[in-house]
Amino acid sequence: MREHGGNLDQAVQRFGGRVQDWIDLSTGINRQPYPVGEIGQRHWSALPSHSDIESLHEAARQAYATGAPILALAGAQAAIQLLPRLAPCGRARVLAPTYNEYVAALSVAGWDVVEVSTFDALAGADLAVVVNPNNPDGRRYDKAELLALLPRVGRLVIDESFADATPELSLAAEAGRPGLLILRSFGKFYGLAGLRLGFVLGGEGDIAALSVMAGPWPVSGAAIAVGRRALLDRDWAKATATRLDGDCLRLDAEVKSRGWRLLGGAPLFRLYETTDATAAQERLAGAHIWSRIFGQQPGWLRLGLPGNEAEWARLAGALVR
Amino acid sequence: MREHGGNLDQAVQRFGGRVQDWIDLSTGINRQPYPVGEIGQRHWSALPSHSDIESLHEAARQAYATGAPILALAGAQAAIQLLPRLAPCGRARVLAPTYNEYVAALSVAGWDVVEVSTFDALAGADLAVVVNPNNPDGRRYDKAELLALLPRVGRLVIDESFADATPELSLAAEAGRPGLLILRSFGKFYGLAGLRLGFVLGGEGDIAALSVMAGPWPVSGAAIAVGRRALLDRDWAKATATRLDGDCLRLDAEVKSRGWRLLGGAPLFRLYETTDATAAQERLAGAHIWSRIFGQQPGWLRLGLPGNEAEWARLAGALVR
Repeated sequence: MREHGGNLDQAVQRFGGRVQDWIDLSTGINRQPYPVGEIGQRHWSALPSHSDIESLHEAARQAYATGAPILALAGAQAAIQLLPRLAPCGRARVLAPTYNEYVAALSVAGWDVVEVSTFDALAGADLAVVVNPNNPDGRRYDKAELLALLPRVGRLVIDESFADATPELSLAAEAGRPGLLILRSFGKFYGLAGLRLGFVLGGEGDIAALSVMAGPWPVSGAAIAVGRRALLDRDWAKATATRLDGDCLRLDAEVKSRGWRLLGGAPLFRLYETTDATAAQERLAGAHIWSRIFGQQPGWLRLGLPGNEAEWARLAGALVR
Repeated sequence: MREHGGNLDQAVQRFGGRVQDWIDLSTGINRQPYPVGEIGQRHWSALPSHSDIESLHEAARQAYATGAPILALAGAQAAIQLLPRLAPCGRARVLAPTYNEYVAALSVAGWDVVEVSTFDALAGADLAVVVNPNNPDGRRYDKAELLALLPRVGRLVIDESFADATPELSLAAEAGRPGLLILRSFGKFYGLAGLRLGFVLGGEGDIAALSVMAGPWPVSGAAIAVGRRALLDRDWAKATATRLDGDCLRLDAEVKSRGWRLLGGAPLFRLYETTDATAAQERLAGAHIWSRIFGQQPGWLRLGLPGNEAEWARLAGALVR
């Protein structure tokens, strides 16, 4: 399995404690989740109906401010698994460093995949991938720049998994344009990654093709019930975006005491340059706080945001050790 | 979308009422579901961990009495979506009539698919599909017969979605043999189709390949928590199998008053020959009881089992009208 955040199993194995003792800051999953609430028995027992799925699609269109064709899937990851089959294998270019599942899924499917480090190097690709804002470094691309790239590639996949708190970056409203595909994650911003819910928006033909690949019941009844409620709750989304902005500043200030330098971030995670990320990760792990490091960048350490004052206090204590 | 049971939307549209007013007997989903119970916040919020998924696999191995390589997926349907990509497209033979998603998924993926009506006609196929017990007619194939077919086909897919109550039919214990793949549904016997959980058992290479196709988090945290608990509860499974046996006899007796003839069935559904299935479906629909009919077989009507005495009484009333 490829390296990901959220691998608390490994932390427990190496540093002890029980899963529930740890504060997992190795992911960009919101630690103040949307309340799951009641889920009617029908959502557990019956197959999701066409109208249930449609109502989820409509809620997502409202949340993402778009009228584009949309398909609910079991996480943005499920969309990544299907994307390589939308077109015959060709040249794929992925703007790197970024989430490592794109290169993996495209390569396995037989694509010629190159990771490129500049935006302009994406031009000419049959399939170009941009994560916006990017994970792990928070790089952002503005809409005009992305739309100018669109006619220069076969398909442009924009992964907006971390865009909920920065809707001004989103191209969801443009997702009807031929060749443009937008991926959205539900679980990160809403703090419900275990629910397995995400969306892909795109042209009618691509969405229909992805729907055939995904089959008739691609998401669970619980994902429909909880996802619909959460996506329609725009007050919660606004309040959460505001809180996350403040928490980012707070985290950046906290780590200054250690001399770490902010490299970038999005409202759910921050990337810092440390002198030795492995040592920094081990120090935090001593307080059962899990973080994410990156094999090829020995100074990089990524942290999610603590979820409550007790977690902030434990992090502050671990940082001054 | 292809015709399936569980399409209550259509029933409501044609015959009125609210979804919750209807008794849905159009599927083979147990209407006395396993209790969902408490689901810890961790299962909602965190990505399913490797050890969580492993513990679910282990519970399924116990329930299916096998030590074979296994992969949890979002329903047996999710396995059907992936199967066509396990091998280069070739000749697929599906023992028909049966669940219509096999022909659909294989055809879309480019296979040369033929529905055959005799078991012997499966020989020579690159991929052969047998549903055992079969849906909708309950045909059963014994283990020796199936194992004798195995060396005569490239891959043999046995869909045991309805085998929970007849474990003596299952080849799960043999699933390590090269070329053999066993599909299991969780949602039908446990009455939790909305959870989206199923399993595929097979040789190590095939299971590894399917796992790569499915991606790192193919099932939800709720499916892991509830699925694991339910699969380990062998007392519930035994009691349910006994109850279903009795309920099948009761249903067969009830419909005799209408002159319907039993064509076959499994412990979760019964297939009857009526004089006019469309008229029979409409009559039941007048009492907001939904059933399944089959376009190409004008007399066939399939019924699931009522879940409680109130439902039995409504069915009895509708049958004598």
